[in-house]
Amino acid sequence: MSGRPFLQIPGPTNVPDRVLRAMDRPVIDHRSPEFGAMVKALLPDVAKVFKSETGKVVLYPSSGTGAWEASLVNTLAPGDRVLSFNNGHFSTLFAEAARNLGIEVDEVPLRWGQGVPAELVEEKLRADQGGSAAYKAVLVVHNETSTGVTSNVVAVRQALDTTGHDALLIVDTVSSLASMDFRMDEWRVDVTLTGSQKGLMLPPGMALLCVGPKAIAASQSGGSRRSFWDWNRIIADNATGFFPYTPATLLLFGLREAVTMLLEEGLDDVFERHERLAVDAWGLKNLCENPAEVSNSLTAVVTPDGIDSGDVMKIAREQYDLALGVGLGRVRGKIFRIGHLGALNELEVLGTLGGVEMALAQAGVKIELGAGVAAAQRSFVAGRQAVATPVAATSR
Amino acid sequence: MSGRPFLQIPGPTNVPDRVLRAMDRPVIDHRSPEFGAMVKALLPDVAKVFKSETGKVVLYPSSGTGAWEASLVNTLAPGDRVLSFNNGHFSTLFAEAARNLGIEVDEVPLRWGQGVPAELVEEKLRADQGGSAAYKAVLVVHNETSTGVTSNVVAVRQALDTTGHDALLIVDTVSSLASMDFRMDEWRVDVTLTGSQKGLMLPPGMALLCVGPKAIAASQSGGSRRSFWDWNRIIADNATGFFPYTPATLLLFGLREAVTMLLEEGLDDVFERHERLAVDAWGLKNLCENPAEVSNSLTAVVTPDGIDSGDVMKIAREQYDLALGVGLGRVRGKIFRIGHLGALNELEVLGTLGGVEMALAQAGVKIELGAGVAAAQRSFVAGRQAVATPVAATSR
Amino acid sequence: MSGRPFLQIPGPTNVPDRVLRAMDRPVIDHRSPEFGAMVKALLPDVAKVFKSETGKVVLYPSSGTGAWEASLVNTLAPGDRVLSFNNGHFSTLFAEAARNLGIEVDEVPLRWGQGVPAELVEEKLRADQGGSAAYKAVLVVHNETSTGVTSNVVAVRQALDTTGHDALLIVDTVSSLASMDFRMDEWRVDVTLTGSQKGLMLPPGMALLCVGPKAIAASQSGGSRRSFWDWNRIIADNATGFFPYTPATLLLFGLREAVTMLLEEGLDDVFERHERLAVDAWGLKNLCENPAEVSNSLTAVVTPDGIDSGDVMKIAREQYDLALGVGLGRVRGKIFRIGHLGALNELEVLGTLGGVEMALAQAGVKIELGAGVAAAQRSFVAGRQAVATPVAATSR
Amino acid sequence: MSGRPFLQIPGPTNVPDRVLRAMDRPVIDHRSPEFGAMVKALLPDVAKVFKSETGKVVLYPSSGTGAWEASLVNTLAPGDRVLSFNNGHFSTLFAEAARNLGIEVDEVPLRWGQGVPAELVEEKLRADQGGSAAYKAVLVVHNETSTGVTSNVVAVRQALDTTGHDALLIVDTVSSLASMDFRMDEWRVDVTLTGSQKGLMLPPGMALLCVGPKAIAASQSGGSRRSFWDWNRIIADNATGFFPYTPATLLLFGLREAVTMLLEEGLDDVFERHERLAVDAWGLKNLCENPAEVSNSLTAVVTPDGIDSGDVMKIAREQYDLALGVGLGRVRGKIFRIGHLGALNELEVLGTLGGVEMALAQAGVKIELGAGVAAAQRSFVAGRQAVATPVAATSR
Repeated sequence: MSGRPFLQIPGPTNVPDRVLRAMDRPVIDHRSPEFGAMVKALLPDVAKVFKSETGKVVLYPSSGTGAWEASLVNTLAPGDRVLSFNNGHFSTLFAEAARNLGIEVDEVPLRWGQGVPAELVEEKLRADQGGSAAYKAVLVVHNETSTGVTSNVVAVRQALDTTGHDALLIVDTVSSLASMDFRMDEWRVDVTLTGSQKGLMLPPGMALLCVGPKAIAASQSGGSRRSFWDWNRIIADNATGFFPYTPATLLLFGLREAVTMLLEEGLDDVFERHERLAVDAWGLKNLCENPAEVSNSLTAVVTPDGIDSGDVMKIAREQYDLALGVGLGRVRGKIFRIGHLGALNELEVLGTLGGVEMALAQAGVKIELGAGVAAAQRSFVAGRQAVATPVAATSR
Repeated sequence: MSGRPFLQIPGPTNVPDRVLRAMDRPVIDHRSPEFGAMVKALLPDVAKVFKSETGKVVLYPSSGTGAWEASLVNTLAPGDRVLSFNNGHFSTLFAEAARNLGIEVDEVPLRWGQGVPAELVEEKLRADQGGSAAYKAVLVVHNETSTGVTSNVVAVRQALDTTGHDALLIVDTVSSLASMDFRMDEWRVDVTLTGSQKGLMLPPGMALLCVGPKAIAASQSGGSRRSFWDWNRIIADNATGFFPYTPATLLLFGLREAVTMLLEEGLDDVFERHERLAVDAWGLKNLCENPAEVSNSLTAVVTPDGIDSGDVMKIAREQYDLALGVGLGRVRGKIFRIGHLGALNELEVLGTLGGVEMALAQAGVKIELGAGVAAAQRSFVAGRQAVATPVAATSR
Repeated sequence: MSGRPFLQIPGPTNVPDRVLRAMDRPVIDHRSPEFGAMVKALLPDVAKVFKSETGKVVLYPSSGTGAWEASLVNTLAPGDRVLSFNNGHFSTLFAEAARNLGIEVDEVPLRWGQGVPAELVEEKLRADQGGSAAYKAVLVVHNETSTGVTSNVVAVRQALDTTGHDALLIVDTVSSLASMDFRMDEWRVDVTLTGSQKGLMLPPGMALLCVGPKAIAASQSGGSRRSFWDWNRIIADNATGFFPYTPATLLLFGLREAVTMLLEEGLDDVFERHERLAVDAWGLKNLCENPAEVSNSLTAVVTPDGIDSGDVMKIAREQYDLALGVGLGRVRGKIFRIGHLGALNELEVLGTLGGVEMALAQAGVKIELGAGVAAAQRSFVAGRQAVATPVAATSR
Repeated sequence: MSGRPFLQIPGPTNVPDRVLRAMDRPVIDHRSPEFGAMVKALLPDVAKVFKSETGKVVLYPSSGTGAWEASLVNTLAPGDRVLSFNNGHFSTLFAEAARNLGIEVDEVPLRWGQGVPAELVEEKLRADQGGSAAYKAVLVVHNETSTGVTSNVVAVRQALDTTGHDALLIVDTVSSLASMDFRMDEWRVDVTLTGSQKGLMLPPGMALLCVGPKAIAASQSGGSRRSFWDWNRIIADNATGFFPYTPATLLLFGLREAVTMLLEEGLDDVFERHERLAVDAWGLKNLCENPAEVSNSLTAVVTPDGIDSGDVMKIAREQYDLALGVGLGRVRGKIFRIGHLGALNELEVLGTLGGVEMALAQAGVKIELGAGVAAAQRSFVAGRQAVATPVAATSR
């Protein structure tokens, strides 16, 4: 198909040309001084993206699922008990990964579309009997990529504080970091984990963690049997700019460029941009139940009864080169997801909304073509006019 | 700014990734057998884009203005007389180039917004007295890039035939070739000239001509003093795949890929796509007067009295990363131009229209946001549904 | 520094421009039919590189160390006993990884510079008492990247056959696959593991395994607790072209191109090229003791007493932009390594040898400049003349 | 063929990855403020490469032959008389271009292999009768790319000064600029012309001129009929950062990067590097007669009687992926040329020399393999040791 494809799945996101070009270069020796200096300058800048000064950034050539595993095997041993909340496909899989590794998971069922209720966290923590069966960690998915729901990590932290529970707080920020506000240190998160292919604007292939002092302490005195994932060896080697394995050199060059771009734009401006672009454009049903929990990085749209969301996606893909996210797990066929995270601007949103409208109409959904686009335009114009400087009388 | 820029000037157009990557490679020896074989296979495929079997393709590392000069100095000598029509900035400059080279130009003034009237061509040709003052050539700009008006080359050809005039027909297809139907052989055009940076989806830097037998004959027996532009030396060397100068190697690799893409899509499908994407979306005034002459590759929009079109462009550029074409020459400040040629798809058009609407509104034009986008969507959906195959009951 | 760097470490190797460009492209939806079709066509071609028809290719976004872990946790449980041979840095680390994961390793010490002696394998297997303490697997590093020694996998296989031992044969081919002959099926290897950044000519970031039926059976009835590394889920999803995690999309496009290049050249021609380029150029001491075990993919050069190999490397790097491999572990300072695997040709070898000679001379080693280069030239010319077709009387 | 090709023709030269990547990016609007600012910052930096503060840089999307034409038609009219010297293929063609444009050329025949003798210049200028038949310009090729001979421009300037002749001094620096010392202002050159594809490390496709005040004055009061080449319109538009035609946007981004690289390395260090790399490696005959005139950017090697230089080139190309320059014009078959200009380092030179030796030997030339390489190595080592800082006792 002609023209540029619209990849609007909730990750991988569009990799900016600057990042692609930064990776399109000769590999260098990963044991050279040049490489070491690059890494030593890079890691503290990555930590800024996590808003952490006390945590250590740990990088693995891996995927987001690898980031789960790294967070678990370094801090928890088989038989340890953790608290988790099932409100979507990825929180389900995170708990499943823990169980696969021998960890006991107390998995609280929620509706898919619901955020993690802080009062429920508090209730579960209060009910904890302590001892060897005490929760060693609370697992939270900040932004559930399968439902477009953002949970309130601050409230979860408060629940831990209120109850005086000392479980580790392990947060999956795969589809939130670098698109939505997240503050590792301020919120006292112990392990933050993410992947390269979302807000960080890189291709998939890297797992990133930021690990706080309490989690490091836990890993030094315990954790599971581990080799590849052992972050202590990595942190030790990283101190001189090197790695205990051959790092994904070109992805690191890409990460360098992507982090530079984020810091150039300014993290808070990045978050404001995603808030601005996450317009509520339709009368269609959002899978997210609570308006306060609607994600700024993706939207899960519920298709009307009788309309298979897969048909909408198929039309979008085949006729308009627009990739949308499939409904995963139990909402397969019932929803589709629009990603609006990472590198993105207003006109791309308009093209995406326009394409979604056309696909919906062609799939048989009663919808007024252009209504969603116009709503977005009004929102964008209002935002611009609120901060407008007068246009000069004449341009060149 | 984040996300992908929207370059919707009427050329240079967006260079597809495939073409950029084809040029991002080591230069090779332009005197090697590998290079010669590439050129020998390429030139006939380029001729297909001109729809010519009898013409010779001639490439220069140059610009569209260089293509003008090549067409003139090879076929005409100082003092020769030509007929031209002034209906825009580029037809003005083409005539000026001819005068700069010593050619006598009978330049018929038209309104900017008007096409070349075939009856006027016929009238001028009939009035031609012949002899040494006879028109040696008729210069026509197929698609006037400054006004968005397409002239009827077939009708011009008929005027030449009807009057039995043997002037050369020299046609500028800079903003039409490979976006709109053009048939060098069928329409008996003697010289067709274009640039790389429009329908051919390349960066600027190459002038392309297709030269018919009558023009070659004229160049062999006459023309101006010339060296760089002498196409006979080029045609002679090209026969073995080489050039009398160092060719722009990487642009040639790009041209190879771009022509492959055009032929893969199918030229007639490319034209149909541009016709489909050239939706009439607004109630705003089109500079083109005659609906039958509205260009499929660009639209010149007249801004209402009191609104400087430069302000609209400035807002589009600064706030939405949308580049629009400036009003050139006598319509500066009065119009802006939207390019919709080259690599382009529906969602890019929707984003562009949406951005133009926002810029217009913010510049003070009374416009209903989304109205133009919705009109385009309806047109696209209607087009798709007309050819629709039923959506399978379930997608994967 | 000007000009092209010479990256002649034993991996990562130089990534060919074709491969870099194949990865410099937009990410696509990893759940789209287009992606699935690409994967389904790719995996069997990757299997050809392993020379396997019965094995399943399993890809992880990871490193060679991740490939070790995947081979271990899928087939072995904590407490299982394996036989390994310590003849270099990487065989040491492979055994250490196994121990980290709770596996009992009977690690036979060898000299660094020695290959795995088949008679010793046989002796160890005969001495195996069977029962729960029986070796479940034999771990062999085909080509020890730290010493430049190639072990005879065929002989190891014969030792297993002769003794009728049913241990799994797990072979690390990180620095041999796609540079030196390896035949998974013919040699009845149960698990072959490698990384992307050596003979496969990709950047680092991917672990590749080829897993035979016996290993799959072992994993289905046992193995360690595992989640990320569980190859059965991957193999199941791969059957339809998809992955249970977000795959490293762009690396897969690179793998597609790299495998195409290998098959275009012809695997046996690739091996022959590496044999040809692995010239024995110096009077200097090779760390590899047995000429029959000298690696075709890298050479470990022992520097004379009193010469720190690190000084040679530093001169090469800083003055000639030539990256050489450091001496690892117990041979640090005593050797440096020249990589000659992956994409490589004669003139690159000559430049490398010439640069090594200059660095040696400047570091104080008594060496005749040019002697090694001349030896290589004579070898190359002799090879060419042996297959020469007469030069045509005149070239163009 | 595997590995990196060796393109060692005397241009186009190897384009560095940094430059290729700078051009592998979206085209931007050539009428945008962003573009204008880039151009305004670029042109003065390009002037530094010409070592000129008084001259204006003029860029054309064209070739080196276009640069000739631009220098001629802006300053000279048909019938004007110029002095030129025929000492190679390119000085021949430069004179021919002038004649094609109606200029009277007094072309002094020299041996190919000879530089322009300053005493002969002086003699010709003294013999000039003045009046309308006076030489209006002296055309000099600084570095004759077909023979590897560098003429002494300073001495030519002195001949003009000594005789008090006011002819313009027009110098072709196609294969010298940015590789060998050239000083436009200090040597009072009136027009300097070059192409993009040599010392400037760009792909072919751009002609660059630096035009001094006297040449501009000549163009304003005279010159030939011209349109495309008229530099006064370009200089006028450039003052605001724009062009009277669509410029070759991506080549300009490449030029920006290439000039940055040259200034980073330091022009005088660039010249020193080329002097260092231009080793005299063989006993073979150099076409350049006078050692003081041997070019630092290329070497023309005379093959022994009975050996067709084309055969050497063919072996180099087909067996070693080494592109050498053909013998042009009257020395076809008798010489081949090795380019050593632009981006280049020591190891590339060693690989090239080694490849040339192998090709010579295989073509039947009696040559000692490795002798030339060893001579180059000794020269490089001697140069390094002359400036050596002591190697630290231990490296990392």
